[in-house]
Amino acid sequence: MKTRGPGTVYLVGAGPGAPDLLTVRAARLLGEADIVFHDALVPKETLALASNAKLVAVGKRSGRFSTAQQFINKQLLDAARRYRSVVRLKGGDPMLFGRAHEEIEFLAAKGIAVTIVPGVTAALAASAELGISLTRRGEARSVTFVTPRVGAGTSKSSWLQAALAADTVAIYMGAGQGSAIAQALIAAGKPGTTPVAVVENASLPEMSVSFTNLDGLRVLAAPAGPALILIGEVYREAAAALGLRRSASHAA
Amino acid sequence: MKTRGPGTVYLVGAGPGAPDLLTVRAARLLGEADIVFHDALVPKETLALASNAKLVAVGKRSGRFSTAQQFINKQLLDAARRYRSVVRLKGGDPMLFGRAHEEIEFLAAKGIAVTIVPGVTAALAASAELGISLTRRGEARSVTFVTPRVGAGTSKSSWLQAALAADTVAIYMGAGQGSAIAQALIAAGKPGTTPVAVVENASLPEMSVSFTNLDGLRVLAAPAGPALILIGEVYREAAAALGLRRSASHAA
Repeated sequence: MKTRGPGTVYLVGAGPGAPDLLTVRAARLLGEADIVFHDALVPKETLALASNAKLVAVGKRSGRFSTAQQFINKQLLDAARRYRSVVRLKGGDPMLFGRAHEEIEFLAAKGIAVTIVPGVTAALAASAELGISLTRRGEARSVTFVTPRVGAGTSKSSWLQAALAADTVAIYMGAGQGSAIAQALIAAGKPGTTPVAVVENASLPEMSVSFTNLDGLRVLAAPAGPALILIGEVYREAAAALGLRRSASHAA
Repeated sequence: MKTRGPGTVYLVGAGPGAPDLLTVRAARLLGEADIVFHDALVPKETLALASNAKLVAVGKRSGRFSTAQQFINKQLLDAARRYRSVVRLKGGDPMLFGRAHEEIEFLAAKGIAVTIVPGVTAALAASAELGISLTRRGEARSVTFVTPRVGAGTSKSSWLQAALAADTVAIYMGAGQGSAIAQALIAAGKPGTTPVAVVENASLPEMSVSFTNLDGLRVLAAPAGPALILIGEVYREAAAALGLRRSASHAA
């Protein structure tokens, strides 16, 4: 997507974490950037590619999302008016739970050119590490990516219905809510024996994986870092083989 | 994932099509490969990175999937026994509708080391080009990726229920079935006015986009090449602005 403006803002997916899972295009744009606004979780090796750029960390603080987003929008606008090439580097892919929409709309309304560069999203990196496909011919033909806000009320049924209807479910930003997520799915009729994999820090050296099931997810200690919760029959074999040992080491 | 074996087979995502949407890791592995088995749709510029490798095209012919897959499995096994580094290059990401599962299981059973490298999947590349996020905070919090076989019978309700329950739907490998997909969704209660974007050749110079709605998808001519069907309220604004002109140029 292109609109008019003085400088261009590139919304760039940084991928799942490993620096070499960045795309070739993203690496080139970082090298050409005058200024880079990056999420807190983007690794140092990735930022080092932006050798000529001013680096600005724009981590959002929990509970102050809206204010922070408005401030980021304003920073991007100011930068686009001063610099030729502005990179907004986001973990994963910008268009999947990346809130790119808010930055795109704001900048487009101000006449700033915006170009989006896709990235490898966490669920695909986690699947690669596990060696387990999200889909399986004839068995798992639908995958739902959701981010639940279990306590939020109004939108509750939306994520739940989507998660119930899919063969495989990838839950983003649900790490602290594993127990509530499992309870909601079980209460809605999903068997407690449904296999689960919880992947922390997918693609990084410090990655960890817990195999369990929905019953186990109810009592699993919340991961310390960012984690992806994967749910579905495709994880049954791995969970059966490794489940007790792995999940036991993570349980409180 | 690693298992034992003489050579290593790397199942590598080639991304959506544009050569520079390959990951840095994939580019490096291609440069180090002794032999590369690639899908028919991988671009020449990408294959050129495998400068020391023997190139083997392994496109599957429609209607002979099983035979072809078994033949590919056998070729990968033979190559792993002869070469140090074998790359199996798949369009998009290997773990999402890539049938990697069948190659992984076969090779693992033979004691061959398999490593998977994720890629940018088509729906993310298409979203980047459209400038429209798959998700939108507070409005679209679930995305379902499905591949329907509308006429296949037994699995019909599975893809349909998953598609009905999600806020946004990305349909892979559904290009020739647009009309049947639209009819099934409408018959199941999805409003005919639900916005639709059909993206062909996402990320390539010859990309084309048709905005319409489910009623329009019923009568839209089937795309000539690989296409992604995107469905959901997030496309309403773009469809309203561009829909009639774009879809008219594609209608039969």
